Amino acid sequence: MMIIVMQPQATRKEVDAVIKKLAEAGLKYHLSQGESRTIIGVIGDKKSIAKLPVDVFPGVEKSVAVTESYKLVSREFRPEDTVVDVQGAKIGGRHLAVMAGPCAVESLEQLLEAAVIVKRAGAQFLRGGAFKPRTSPYDFQGLEEKGLEMLAAAREKTGLKVITEVVDSASVGLVSQYADVLQIGTRNMQNFNLLKTVGRTDKPVLLKRGLAATISEWLNAAEYIMSEGNYNVILCERGIRTFETYTRNTLDLGAVAAVKTLSHLPVIVDPSHGTGRWKMVRPMARAAVAAGADGLIIEVHPNPAEALCDGNQSLTPENFSLLMNEIGAIAAVTGKSLQ
Amino acid sequence: MMIIVMQPQATRKEVDAVIKKLAEAGLKYHLSQGESRTIIGVIGDKKSIAKLPVDVFPGVEKSVAVTESYKLVSREFRPEDTVVDVQGAKIGGRHLAVMAGPCAVESLEQLLEAAVIVKRAGAQFLRGGAFKPRTSPYDFQGLEEKGLEMLAAAREKTGLKVITEVVDSASVGLVSQYADVLQIGTRNMQNFNLLKTVGRTDKPVLLKRGLAATISEWLNAAEYIMSEGNYNVILCERGIRTFETYTRNTLDLGAVAAVKTLSHLPVIVDPSHGTGRWKMVRPMARAAVAAGADGLIIEVHPNPAEALCDGNQSLTPENFSLLMNEIGAIAAVTGKSLQ
Amino acid sequence: MMIIVMQPQATRKEVDAVIKKLAEAGLKYHLSQGESRTIIGVIGDKKSIAKLPVDVFPGVEKSVAVTESYKLVSREFRPEDTVVDVQGAKIGGRHLAVMAGPCAVESLEQLLEAAVIVKRAGAQFLRGGAFKPRTSPYDFQGLEEKGLEMLAAAREKTGLKVITEVVDSASVGLVSQYADVLQIGTRNMQNFNLLKTVGRTDKPVLLKRGLAATISEWLNAAEYIMSEGNYNVILCERGIRTFETYTRNTLDLGAVAAVKTLSHLPVIVDPSHGTGRWKMVRPMARAAVAAGADGLIIEVHPNPAEALCDGNQSLTPENFSLLMNEIGAIAAVTGKSLQ
Amino acid sequence: MMIIVMQPQATRKEVDAVIKKLAEAGLKYHLSQGESRTIIGVIGDKKSIAKLPVDVFPGVEKSVAVTESYKLVSREFRPEDTVVDVQGAKIGGRHLAVMAGPCAVESLEQLLEAAVIVKRAGAQFLRGGAFKPRTSPYDFQGLEEKGLEMLAAAREKTGLKVITEVVDSASVGLVSQYADVLQIGTRNMQNFNLLKTVGRTDKPVLLKRGLAATISEWLNAAEYIMSEGNYNVILCERGIRTFETYTRNTLDLGAVAAVKTLSHLPVIVDPSHGTGRWKMVRPMARAAVAAGADGLIIEVHPNPAEALCDGNQSLTPENFSLLMNEIGAIAAVTGKSLQ
Repeated sequence: MMIIVMQPQATRKEVDAVIKKLAEAGLKYHLSQGESRTIIGVIGDKKSIAKLPVDVFPGVEKSVAVTESYKLVSREFRPEDTVVDVQGAKIGGRHLAVMAGPCAVESLEQLLEAAVIVKRAGAQFLRGGAFKPRTSPYDFQGLEEKGLEMLAAAREKTGLKVITEVVDSASVGLVSQYADVLQIGTRNMQNFNLLKTVGRTDKPVLLKRGLAATISEWLNAAEYIMSEGNYNVILCERGIRTFETYTRNTLDLGAVAAVKTLSHLPVIVDPSHGTGRWKMVRPMARAAVAAGADGLIIEVHPNPAEALCDGNQSLTPENFSLLMNEIGAIAAVTGKSLQ
Repeated sequence: MMIIVMQPQATRKEVDAVIKKLAEAGLKYHLSQGESRTIIGVIGDKKSIAKLPVDVFPGVEKSVAVTESYKLVSREFRPEDTVVDVQGAKIGGRHLAVMAGPCAVESLEQLLEAAVIVKRAGAQFLRGGAFKPRTSPYDFQGLEEKGLEMLAAAREKTGLKVITEVVDSASVGLVSQYADVLQIGTRNMQNFNLLKTVGRTDKPVLLKRGLAATISEWLNAAEYIMSEGNYNVILCERGIRTFETYTRNTLDLGAVAAVKTLSHLPVIVDPSHGTGRWKMVRPMARAAVAAGADGLIIEVHPNPAEALCDGNQSLTPENFSLLMNEIGAIAAVTGKSLQ
Repeated sequence: MMIIVMQPQATRKEVDAVIKKLAEAGLKYHLSQGESRTIIGVIGDKKSIAKLPVDVFPGVEKSVAVTESYKLVSREFRPEDTVVDVQGAKIGGRHLAVMAGPCAVESLEQLLEAAVIVKRAGAQFLRGGAFKPRTSPYDFQGLEEKGLEMLAAAREKTGLKVITEVVDSASVGLVSQYADVLQIGTRNMQNFNLLKTVGRTDKPVLLKRGLAATISEWLNAAEYIMSEGNYNVILCERGIRTFETYTRNTLDLGAVAAVKTLSHLPVIVDPSHGTGRWKMVRPMARAAVAAGADGLIIEVHPNPAEALCDGNQSLTPENFSLLMNEIGAIAAVTGKSLQ
Repeated sequence: MMIIVMQPQATRKEVDAVIKKLAEAGLKYHLSQGESRTIIGVIGDKKSIAKLPVDVFPGVEKSVAVTESYKLVSREFRPEDTVVDVQGAKIGGRHLAVMAGPCAVESLEQLLEAAVIVKRAGAQFLRGGAFKPRTSPYDFQGLEEKGLEMLAAAREKTGLKVITEVVDSASVGLVSQYADVLQIGTRNMQNFNLLKTVGRTDKPVLLKRGLAATISEWLNAAEYIMSEGNYNVILCERGIRTFETYTRNTLDLGAVAAVKTLSHLPVIVDPSHGTGRWKMVRPMARAAVAAGADGLIIEVHPNPAEALCDGNQSLTPENFSLLMNEIGAIAAVTGKSLQ
């Protein structure tokens, strides 16, 4: 559905020309004649509407899209909450899921130590990057397949489910052999080929919001995955880019509440990247749960001062443990509980 | 304190010229000679440093300020939390303060009805605008002094403390006769004359964050008030402007956690303006309390569908009541309680 | 004019209830019934529409304003360009106006030296701040009335028209005694009392765009001035706040082209604040003229390295002179010329 | 190079612990002891510095990176302008390059018609998308290889060089068979695998700035390409995402001036995506050239009202022709000329 606003000085002939175009494209319309201008409501399927460059027609002031282009992700399509089941570990509905672990897989020892820590504190998922997208080509880029093997070994030992990032279509097959959940990072939120590729797998996908993606674009990205047949999508708010420089990003918890209205998909929050400062991770993790998030993904490192990446935003085991107690209490208020 | 980074090709003579300038200005410095460039650390009082336009000196690549210019608002100046006492109603420390009421004072009946509702639900403060800054000159601009009189009448009847906005220096005296707390709105956060004027009163001041103000600028604005002698300043996060259009603003709860580190002043949150959608007010109010906020300021209207302004973001009495129960439970986690 | 989009599951009864509200408010409407939802076009005067909090009515998904609330500033109200005449110096239409001088008035000597330099290079206006709004209370705040006297002396000597900032309603009278053009700074763009006060004077007003003001809010602020009777308003784009930190602000030259479509008012550009770096002032000043700006306001200092404020973004006399030659050539392409 | 700012209350022991860490990492440092705090300047290779999570060490307030991590793209590495030579058509230095054509390749007829138009008006490059990244999976996604074949046919007929987008690593080989310049789109600016893949080809690469990428991140993305051996990189500013909604994006022409200082690479501007409104394309294209851009990439369509994508921002042949005349005149001021 779209609204076309004509200029005040638009002539009857110009209005007719627009209407003719709409009719040719097989679209229905309704005219509203105001005192100073005419508006035209356009009704029809999205593809036909999207094709029409109405703003270039003479006499048109502007057009406003009034409905979203996604469908499968919408609450309208499926009114009840989706619960993603990762071999028994659930995300969505009344379940509060916690994913934790180091930014990057650095060594088997480090990973196993982290895994035991987060398992003991009550998490169900182990996070850890084997492929690391980094701003500079000279930064540590991850252990790649060796890192994946270590993640699998940590799962073996602890029973935690493994979530790890996949950075391109070519490695989706490889990562799928090791991971329980495929993570699409913030920089790849609109890497549409990658979205389609993971949409053809049977692995649940965690889709991080892009650094400057609107909620609408984010949901459209999820639609790419679902439109290929994979309905197990988990959204993840991880901070957006604003003018504020004190924090690494601005964690947009309003997006959690918004997604709950617009979509049936579960949404979790990453307070580590969302703030970039370990001192702020606990308060913001608590806030995320209070806002209604279905889970958290948090960087925890046995020894943040030795971390190869993101040490500044990683929690110590002690702080993570304190946090788990706090969110357990808050989750009760939103009708959720840790598993 | 400031760091001057010289260009890689800067000559010894250029470095010496900068040093000479610093010495003339009475500033101390330390040279760090790297392999490819020289950096100069500048130490001295803020005024002297601020005056130097070092970036225009030949050979200088850039300068970086490494310390903040505010002092009285800093946690460093006063390590313990400030508790603002408004005739017995406390804001800060272990107290969770709730301010509620309509966007604008519309009539005595409406205001008294709202006051009774918010009082009964447990709020300590009645909010309501008598002077309304509006984007368009054709929008409702408030009842002015008549509105102030109604606020005083509502205080009389309910015992609630009154908080209302003051929009210019000329009316600070008038508003002070009626209000218990003076509110500085988001558009006036850097109206420095107004800040200085309220800084010379003995009324507590609620300082809303500017729409695009950094945390640093916000704290500097509070410094304007405190530097005139008024130490009873309450900060209020109310959403910042970002690219996201689904919400009216992006509520930056990370700012709450940041302020708690940087300053001793109490900080409260306005989830009504922060989201612009009443459906999001409850989740974001809960999140604010979980993040460690010292209170909330919320728009509540006996009948939002009839409100003269901001009806879209006002809570009904029922929803406000539900919210009060929820935040009571969450406050316990952050060591606070409703009074 | 406003569009109300109903939820797909909205009932006939809910639609009727909305229509009843519209009728009660004296508004006309048109229904458009799509396959999956109903939209309602609302027609009527702006005040009546603005009052209706339609988003809280049951069954309403959202409302979209499709027309602007300003009127006097619009191109629709006055199709031809406004030319502001400041005692013979013209801004708008085919005239390219240049305003130049130091950030702050520092001393009579400094100001006279600057005035002679900018006059000789071809500027018609002398800029210089006597009242300086500063982020920190500890920064230099201007010479106030003494500064105004110096500006008048410089006008006496050179014939340049004087433009200077007014920071509050109380000093509008004082500043008007000395200035030829009153400048409203970026932080005061929505200081509505100040806007109304200058709207009641007979002095031309230069209205800087707020740091995070949309073009629509900026034009509404101009409407405040015009609605009080003062039609001599000049708009000034001076950079907006974005995530980019290399420049002090992001100069939005697209706003110049946008204003030319939406309004008849002249619009000039401040490349000094827009970039914060003197090396970028010349390229961006050229770009502004090429984009169709009606003029420039530029910081020029006899000796930037000695400036009390904004030395980093001030041009030397030599660079200013080079710039004047460049923009003369470019102005010809947009049908304007230096006077 | 990095600066570590210690907290005012940091102990001598804490400072020593930081220094010990630096020494262990093989980094040099300089201590600057101020009255209220200590700062430590760290000198050493970027990799070693990047690894240290100094913000988690006790007593550290914050760390500030003072130099950039890119090297090959920097003006420091290569002081003179890079001129990219695309089989005789040059970009950079004194050459103003113009790339024009439809948003998407739609049919051979449409493309040939567009090619003849842009060739006649004086452009050297034909642009046209065969692979189209689109927000919604239901939008037109491009003709893929058939589109590439049509581009080659248009080159055959007109002699124009062909620039077209490559959206993933897997299709780099295919696109390279047809294109003269590979375009990396805004959503893929940090698709690091794709950057490395095009870095291993011998085709010039046009790298569009990401929607919310800082200038620094953009240059680091170019460094990814150059670090693989491909030095023929052309940067393209195409608008960033801000709060302003009147334009599709905010065209950041300041970035052009900034890049000219920081890097030797040529930088061109896309005013079509930068504004999203055809009426603004001419003014902003002129502004880009005046700001010092090395070229333009512009959407031109034989009949914008019939375009399958981006018709709203496409120029008609007449307007494109007018624009070519205007920029020829402006280029002279910046020392460049059309070829």
